[in-house]
Amino acid sequence: MNRLEVDTSPRWVERVAERPLELLSDHAHCELRAAASAQALIVKYPEDVELVLRMSAVAREELEHFERVLGVLAKRGAGLLPARANPYAEGLLAARAHKKEELLLDRLLIAALIEARSLERFVLLAEHLADRELAALYRELVPSEAGHQALFVQLARGRYPEARVHARLAELRAVEARVIQALAFEVRMHSGDVQPATSAR
Amino acid sequence: MNRLEVDTSPRWVERVAERPLELLSDHAHCELRAAASAQALIVKYPEDVELVLRMSAVAREELEHFERVLGVLAKRGAGLLPARANPYAEGLLAARAHKKEELLLDRLLIAALIEARSLERFVLLAEHLADRELAALYRELVPSEAGHQALFVQLARGRYPEARVHARLAELRAVEARVIQALAFEVRMHSGDVQPATSAR
Repeated sequence: MNRLEVDTSPRWVERVAERPLELLSDHAHCELRAAASAQALIVKYPEDVELVLRMSAVAREELEHFERVLGVLAKRGAGLLPARANPYAEGLLAARAHKKEELLLDRLLIAALIEARSLERFVLLAEHLADRELAALYRELVPSEAGHQALFVQLARGRYPEARVHARLAELRAVEARVIQALAFEVRMHSGDVQPATSAR
Repeated sequence: MNRLEVDTSPRWVERVAERPLELLSDHAHCELRAAASAQALIVKYPEDVELVLRMSAVAREELEHFERVLGVLAKRGAGLLPARANPYAEGLLAARAHKKEELLLDRLLIAALIEARSLERFVLLAEHLADRELAALYRELVPSEAGHQALFVQLARGRYPEARVHARLAELRAVEARVIQALAFEVRMHSGDVQPATSAR
């Protein structure tokens, strides 16, 4: 359900691998932002008990990943670089509904798509990085990222009609493709350098 | 080092005990805000490795407490009420330094004082609530609250001269007393109903 319309180019892995400390710092900030987004959903939908509990658990898990990434940075004598603007997530969020009753659907599906893109890149990094420690890190994080992606879609399905979820996911998947195609390459988890999806997907 | 200038009145416990679901919901929101504040320090001071790691651990622990409080609410068939403005924390934060080099000191000491007030009230609730489940909850949370309070002061001492920490803590302690004395009683963790500290302290 969460395929993406464009694939990350194999070059992307080669290029981010040249500056692993920057990639790791950006990745750590992504984990921190993911935690904050989950917490923001709690504050916005306090009456939704299941959502609240799930989002708190997600936030804790993202913070654990944040600390895991910091640990790898620390072993390399490095730390967190300053936070930067995040045009990828901002581009996706700009497409969200303004009507209150549709907003939760969009927030959940946008979160699912961000997790899907991260998952795609973690898998690529796990498979292709020559740096064994980093490859192991990304391999380790894959199951959790896949779980989060599925959770966000499941929460959407529990709250909106199946057909609505399906249709809106298709629309937002197109937005995701447009946003990431418009981004330049940078040593960041959600930077540009994509190509049309192969037929195998 | 973290005594407070005014004590919570014994009546405060009696009054909040009348509406435990509201107290618990407000408490849950406090835990959520404490997590968010810790994460905000990470984003603001990414270069401070020790601070970053400590704050991530604090945020995770606050989220665990949040879930613990939600569990007690759920057992009583209740959930989280909408978030409300937080005049106590806002009043303290309004006193923070504007100079960048003093700002971290103030943020750490304000966090320490908020933890100190929470700790004082958790101890009162643990000792005086007739509701055994709630008394047990607060007893259980006391050591962590005490640990956080000590951690914030320790982080301040590691970054600023001892005399400066001591002097500023005295100033902010007076601010805390003014802020909480000005607040009306409400069924909230940081509401008014205080009295001059007893000589025993």
